[in-house]
Amino acid sequence: MKVDGSNYRTVWMEGDRVHLIEQNLLPFQFKVFEAANYQVTCMAISTMIVRGAGAIGATAGYAMAQAFLHAGDDADYIENARRQIEHTRPTAQNLFYAVERVYRAGLISVRDAVKEAHDLADEDVDACQKIGNLGNDLIADGSRIETHCNAGWLAFVDYGSALSPIYTAHRSGKQVFVYADETRPRGQGARLTAWELKNEDVPHMIIADNAGAHLMSQGRVDMMIVGSDRIAVNGDVANKIGTLEKAIAARYYGIPFYVAAPVSTIDFSCRSGSNIPLEERPMDEVLYQSGPKADGEIENVLVSSPGSQALNPAFDVTPAELVTAIITDRGIFKPGELGALA
Amino acid sequence: MKVDGSNYRTVWMEGDRVHLIEQNLLPFQFKVFEAANYQVTCMAISTMIVRGAGAIGATAGYAMAQAFLHAGDDADYIENARRQIEHTRPTAQNLFYAVERVYRAGLISVRDAVKEAHDLADEDVDACQKIGNLGNDLIADGSRIETHCNAGWLAFVDYGSALSPIYTAHRSGKQVFVYADETRPRGQGARLTAWELKNEDVPHMIIADNAGAHLMSQGRVDMMIVGSDRIAVNGDVANKIGTLEKAIAARYYGIPFYVAAPVSTIDFSCRSGSNIPLEERPMDEVLYQSGPKADGEIENVLVSSPGSQALNPAFDVTPAELVTAIITDRGIFKPGELGALA
Repeated sequence: MKVDGSNYRTVWMEGDRVHLIEQNLLPFQFKVFEAANYQVTCMAISTMIVRGAGAIGATAGYAMAQAFLHAGDDADYIENARRQIEHTRPTAQNLFYAVERVYRAGLISVRDAVKEAHDLADEDVDACQKIGNLGNDLIADGSRIETHCNAGWLAFVDYGSALSPIYTAHRSGKQVFVYADETRPRGQGARLTAWELKNEDVPHMIIADNAGAHLMSQGRVDMMIVGSDRIAVNGDVANKIGTLEKAIAARYYGIPFYVAAPVSTIDFSCRSGSNIPLEERPMDEVLYQSGPKADGEIENVLVSSPGSQALNPAFDVTPAELVTAIITDRGIFKPGELGALA
Repeated sequence: MKVDGSNYRTVWMEGDRVHLIEQNLLPFQFKVFEAANYQVTCMAISTMIVRGAGAIGATAGYAMAQAFLHAGDDADYIENARRQIEHTRPTAQNLFYAVERVYRAGLISVRDAVKEAHDLADEDVDACQKIGNLGNDLIADGSRIETHCNAGWLAFVDYGSALSPIYTAHRSGKQVFVYADETRPRGQGARLTAWELKNEDVPHMIIADNAGAHLMSQGRVDMMIVGSDRIAVNGDVANKIGTLEKAIAARYYGIPFYVAAPVSTIDFSCRSGSNIPLEERPMDEVLYQSGPKADGEIENVLVSSPGSQALNPAFDVTPAELVTAIITDRGIFKPGELGALA
């Protein structure tokens, strides 16, 4: 991705330092966060300095590598680190996938652990490019595409999943228009997807999450593409809260509903969506909102009635029957066909 | 409604002055706004100092009465006033219903116009009480009810439509629990419905609009009740943006979806939802959010990527086929049965 003319990845490691684009500050400030050890990297994952399926995966892989770099002869340090990293975000399949691979490599040598973490990040970039090329074939010239949350550059190491086919289509000269769901409570659509689309010059508008079905009912949405945090082997898809509503509405109006994700997001040990752990996050994410005031200073304001509580489930599961197809780096599959990829 | 121990209506008129609870400041500040003439009352409607089907209707009726009080012999003043009032909120059926009635009464005498406006407000209170009693029969003890936007006290002159059955059920000793959709972009659920429910001691939680289908999928929602801004004679229902998504999700999960509204919300001249004008509001309602900072001062913050635009449709139409029944002051009807009420 290009930011102010420079090429960036969302996450990278130099020596034993993990570097992350600070996503809680975007799009209002562009800063790079540096984590000196796996504990700080864990904090960055759980506080969503880094978020998004592939970006969490790569960061978790680097955190595991940091643990090997710092463990010396202390085997408990490694085991503790693994547990801590795995407790940061329970729904993210790429996190478990990455930790497992770096852990196994680290049993051979520290150097192998570090190489495996770098390989994982490179594979993520490669997979997202392939998703872009394959998914592009599904996008007709003139398409109006709705997306939910952010599954772009920032959600992966680069390129993204749901947005990658859109970027490829746009660069190939097709006319595309994107409706970006704002994606309450954290607003990843309004903040991150809109920011990416503007940087890529893709015509777009932000909509309240409530507006999706309405636009579909008026024939203004040709297709939906979303990302995923974990896909069960039967094709049930966990993704950001609200994805399920869109999938149901898309089915009601006969609109194709695509999920884009690398094969590393498929949890082959998980038979159906009911086995996917769904994270619940603090209620303050719903009750408060933050952003810059007129003078640019970031302020936190209460947007709900004082004294009322909120429930904040962060993910939902879209049943396979509502998914038209899953765009992976190894091809486009019907939800029922995923088992063959194991 | 009781606020700090005093009884209030949402709107009332003393002499030629229209008084309104300032809903843009709620729940953070409780203030009464006073409009000295119909022009100011129109501004109060269009800027949503007053909002909600019945409250808009009663306010529009009073605005029309103000015009008669101030017109003297100037017939053009009356006609101009009528046009201006009718242009404040295009979707609100109760507005057109009230203006028509007060206008006709005013052709007899100014005193008749004023009396008609007061009668309209009283009828609204009476209708909402009846909706409460009738709707209560649909609520089983222990029900978990989801509602969208605010269709309570504040959306009418008193009592409300969708919330009135819930209040009646709660006062009758039934256990009820309410999920209040926050209702972006303006947050009437998080701000107004939650505030009312707290004042009435009804157990509740605020949820992001995205969470509705997820809770339904987990069997945590027993029924939905929403209000309406205009109902076509075929039973299609215009209501706050996002209502349509909930109705589709409720159908998918087999959950009853009720609309509560006085008969005055039915537009008997409107054959179907496609004839209902749907208001689009300024994009800044999506791009910015306001509320008190820690020190209590109200601040406006940007919650989206600078330079991106938003689309802000304020209402959608739920097709009759998704509506289980409509709870009116004259009985509970299937959507297809409304014609008999004309």
